[in-house]
Amino acid sequence: MIKKIGIIGLGHVGTSVVESLKKYSSLIRERSSLSLKIKKVCDANKSRRNFAKKLGVPFTTDYNDLTNDPEIDIIVELIGGIEPANSIILSALNKGKSVVTANKALLATKGKKIFALAQKNRKRVGFEASVCGAIPLIKSTSEGLVCCDVKKIYGILNGTTNYILYKMQRENIDFASSLNEAQVQGYAEKKADLDINGVDSLHKLCILSYLCYGIWPSLDKVYAEGISKISLLDIAYAKDLGYQIKLLSIAKKEKGSLDIRVHPTLIPIDHPLSQVALAFNAVYFDTKPAGDLLFYGQGAGGVATSSSVISDIVSIASGHKGFIRSQGKAKIKNIADIKTRYYIRCMVMDSPGVLAKISKILASYKISIASVNQKERREGKFVPIVMQTHQAKESNMQKAINNINRLKVIKSPLQIIRIEDLPS
Amino acid sequence: MIKKIGIIGLGHVGTSVVESLKKYSSLIRERSSLSLKIKKVCDANKSRRNFAKKLGVPFTTDYNDLTNDPEIDIIVELIGGIEPANSIILSALNKGKSVVTANKALLATKGKKIFALAQKNRKRVGFEASVCGAIPLIKSTSEGLVCCDVKKIYGILNGTTNYILYKMQRENIDFASSLNEAQVQGYAEKKADLDINGVDSLHKLCILSYLCYGIWPSLDKVYAEGISKISLLDIAYAKDLGYQIKLLSIAKKEKGSLDIRVHPTLIPIDHPLSQVALAFNAVYFDTKPAGDLLFYGQGAGGVATSSSVISDIVSIASGHKGFIRSQGKAKIKNIADIKTRYYIRCMVMDSPGVLAKISKILASYKISIASVNQKERREGKFVPIVMQTHQAKESNMQKAINNINRLKVIKSPLQIIRIEDLPS
Repeated sequence: MIKKIGIIGLGHVGTSVVESLKKYSSLIRERSSLSLKIKKVCDANKSRRNFAKKLGVPFTTDYNDLTNDPEIDIIVELIGGIEPANSIILSALNKGKSVVTANKALLATKGKKIFALAQKNRKRVGFEASVCGAIPLIKSTSEGLVCCDVKKIYGILNGTTNYILYKMQRENIDFASSLNEAQVQGYAEKKADLDINGVDSLHKLCILSYLCYGIWPSLDKVYAEGISKISLLDIAYAKDLGYQIKLLSIAKKEKGSLDIRVHPTLIPIDHPLSQVALAFNAVYFDTKPAGDLLFYGQGAGGVATSSSVISDIVSIASGHKGFIRSQGKAKIKNIADIKTRYYIRCMVMDSPGVLAKISKILASYKISIASVNQKERREGKFVPIVMQTHQAKESNMQKAINNINRLKVIKSPLQIIRIEDLPS
Repeated sequence: MIKKIGIIGLGHVGTSVVESLKKYSSLIRERSSLSLKIKKVCDANKSRRNFAKKLGVPFTTDYNDLTNDPEIDIIVELIGGIEPANSIILSALNKGKSVVTANKALLATKGKKIFALAQKNRKRVGFEASVCGAIPLIKSTSEGLVCCDVKKIYGILNGTTNYILYKMQRENIDFASSLNEAQVQGYAEKKADLDINGVDSLHKLCILSYLCYGIWPSLDKVYAEGISKISLLDIAYAKDLGYQIKLLSIAKKEKGSLDIRVHPTLIPIDHPLSQVALAFNAVYFDTKPAGDLLFYGQGAGGVATSSSVISDIVSIASGHKGFIRSQGKAKIKNIADIKTRYYIRCMVMDSPGVLAKISKILASYKISIASVNQKERREGKFVPIVMQTHQAKESNMQKAINNINRLKVIKSPLQIIRIEDLPS
């Protein structure tokens, strides 16, 4: 069976998909009995014509040439961003084509409409490459865990921030230096804001929420906090307590509500997620009946990601209809209402009664302390105190922090990082 | 769409499949639009009738009632062992039914014939549950990595042995005590030989070889070595060198040959496979173009494994045809011909010239030493010496060991464990 494909966007992923389709065509045919033919490729940048020519594939700068082509069965959108990607996908679906995309920002923003249109037109939108690059996570979850109730999702969904935190910890360099190294090594872009501030992770987490719960959260209702405030002190103190700091994407399905958020998190040092090195991605699921599962691999890179794009193409070309949960319902829990444990680091004046003042404020907001360590390091006359709390309500914690920050004996602001005591 | 299923074998997995199909039926229907109906269940043991009755499912002790039933679309074989499982599967395939099985011993032995018959009759044999229990590994690999060339497979495929080694290391207890604890905790059966001696891992590795390379190795041509000779000393010395000892299943596709084997292995302590705790399973793939991937989850347990059985049922019932590599060809490499690095521990008399004698023998077989440590612990008048070699040929190493064991200054036999320097 020959299926014809149009590829729009010849960046890192797009060019790698074209190359991998050529390179691994016999393997694909052997396994799936499919012959995949690239009918045409498109990029707004004319200079990409040379790449296409070298690989013997027709080229255009106008994506309508592809979406209007009745011979093309599958449109592969790899340009990223909202427009024209959104128009391309809607147009392709309206013309009876299935779509494959790696566009997490688009799906997180417009996914609900896109999937509704696909369902109406009985076409598929393949999105394996939109979360965790090369890891076959979408297929594993939607088909492999087809009978599973996913209770909790814990993801390291952004390679750039994982690389930065990993290097800070390994090489004892601060955030700015580590970011700089990531940029030099090609693990971070010059403009790395969306990675650093947690928004890229948030996009991917919303896609996982759709996958596991059938719910597209409004982006503005999901709390996302980045890693720029994480210091070497925190990494060292966390380690003393038996924790590693990771930018964790969390979703927990509770009765009628969804606790979903992205923030730096202390996780137990002997948990497999703690061992995720360099720019690797990983997702940990707590499920029934399959139990705990971890998927780990490269989260980015054109060559690696081409594998996921091609697996979507093959799945759609083979007539697999794919499994997705239908529209789920749940109230997105406000961050103020969550309950969690906290790591608190305050720099305090080394004078009597300071700890009493802090603990009095915490107690007045019903926050009880699980451990306190006064560290010996000194920054001028300020001494770090590191505390862990028991479970506390976020809104109470925020009020307590505001009050503590107003104390004259405190060098404000104090640092708080949430703790997840993942099962080992 | 309603599909009818017959389940044969009501042990841990079989009863869990019946229960999970009931418990998660709405989730399955929501995702796949399928209604799965258990037409009949079968077990040779009459006492299982009560279980079936409680769940409202017709029961028989004669599997022919199921394989002969023209209304049953899918036969699920969960009795294990070679016969009558083999006859049941062949009979079902010959009667135009697809089959789902968790039977690794059967597939490793008769898989070639079974899959050939399935292909001839255009039916499917689902085997997700045969390797790594609840991990959706077969689907991830065959479909998610459909364009991937799997260069290397490293698996922790047996939960019992992982539990034993994990507990030895964590609790500083010897092999016999750890095995005993595993039996008490239900992680090892009373007769745990097939787990301990590596044969269960070997079966699963052969299935992965079929999955990734289209090759069914003859079981008698694949080297399998168990964990009973691993001592606490080795675990401690390996740790000093930066390694963890795991029962590793290894397959490496080389030019025209397949290096495939199961044995205790030193792997770098910061590699994700080192962190696989308790009775968990994990598989690490080195692939092109998807790069390095790890899949991790529960390797056994009826409830967890029911997820994999059901995902096969749903996939087959949905008409997915599944992807498998066609017959591959490769010579199975004799263990004598492999090249690897070795950890060597000898207990030697604490007298001058001993190291010279040992290293002279090693050198005479072209084995060069990468590191030597004389340990301070003493067992009587014998002192342990721990060495790491550079890459050496197995046949040379075996000859060298024979010679060293004959030295009077050695308390034989010396211990050798192969090293895999997995990329981190």
